[in-house]
Amino acid sequence: ARPKVGYFYAGVDENNIISKKLKSKKISEIMSMPVLLTEETTVYNAIVTMFLEDVGSIYITNNGYLSGVISRKDLLKSTIGGMDINKIPVGMTMTRMPNIVIANPNESISEAVKKIIEHEVDSLPVVDTEIKNGKEYHQVIGRISKTNIARLFVELCGE
Amino acid sequence: ARPKVGYFYAGVDENNIISKKLKSKKISEIMSMPVLLTEETTVYNAIVTMFLEDVGSIYITNNGYLSGVISRKDLLKSTIGGMDINKIPVGMTMTRMPNIVIANPNESISEAVKKIIEHEVDSLPVVDTEIKNGKEYHQVIGRISKTNIARLFVELCGE
Repeated sequence: ARPKVGYFYAGVDENNIISKKLKSKKISEIMSMPVLLTEETTVYNAIVTMFLEDVGSIYITNNGYLSGVISRKDLLKSTIGGMDINKIPVGMTMTRMPNIVIANPNESISEAVKKIIEHEVDSLPVVDTEIKNGKEYHQVIGRISKTNIARLFVELCGE
Repeated sequence: ARPKVGYFYAGVDENNIISKKLKSKKISEIMSMPVLLTEETTVYNAIVTMFLEDVGSIYITNNGYLSGVISRKDLLKSTIGGMDINKIPVGMTMTRMPNIVIANPNESISEAVKKIIEHEVDSLPVVDTEIKNGKEYHQVIGRISKTNIARLFVELCGE
C-alpha cells in the first residue's frame, strides 16, 4: 500500500464532514410552503393550481388534516384516463393515507433525502402530528422536495 | 469577536471540502440513460413512454440530434388544452432548441445543479457536441436530474 502522508487526515474525513453537515441540518431549515387543496376540488382545478403555484405535488386535506397527495404523474394519468376532469374530485384519484410518506420538521435532511429516494416520490409533506383518541392526525406545515435538496447543494458549493 | 480555538480549522474548511468534492465529481459519473423519441411521436405515445420509463422528461431528436425536450408539465398542458393528443406530434408542443439547457459529460456536478436551479428545469440532457459547417449538433448521451442529485446526497451521507 502506498504510504498516506500529508492529506491523509482530510481524505479519511471528507465524507464524514459532509455526512455530519447533512445530518445536523433539519428539514425545518430548508422546507417550502405547502400547497393545499381539499378532497372536493375537481381534478381540473387541481391541475390549474399546480400550474399557478408551479409545484410538482399538492397535498390534500380533510377537516384540516392530511388525507392525500396528488402529483403531476397522478394528474397526467387522470387526464388520459377518459374521465371527466371537470367533475371528478381529487379525492377519488389521489394517493391516500396511510400510503403517504411524511416527514416531521425536526428530522434531519439526510433522513428526508433517503425517504424521497427510497419511496420514489418528488416531495414529502412536512407535518405536525396530533394524537386524538388514539388516532394520529397530521397538520401539513411544509413541503420538502428534490428542488430544496438541489438548492441546498448549490448553497453548500459556496456560491 | 469570540476567540476561535480548537475547531477553527474544520469550521472554516467544511464548506470548502464539500464544494471541492462536488466540483471534482463529473456529470458522467452519475448521469442516467436518456429516454429519446422523435418529433413525429404523438403526444399520447410520449405520455405512455413517460409512464413506462418513469422519467420526468423525454428528449426529442431529429435526424439523431437533440431538437427538443418535453416534460410532464408540457404533457399535462397538452392534455387539458383540448387538442387531439392521438394526432398531435410532440414536435409541435415540445420546448425547442436553442431554448434548452444542456450539459456536457465533463462538466462538474456543481455546474449541473446550478443550471437546474437557475433555469428551473427537472433535468438536463447530457450531450456530445459536433460542429458541422459551423453549426452545432448535439447527440444525447445521458440525462442528469434532481433524482441523480438526491441519490448522490444519500451516497455522500455515507450509508
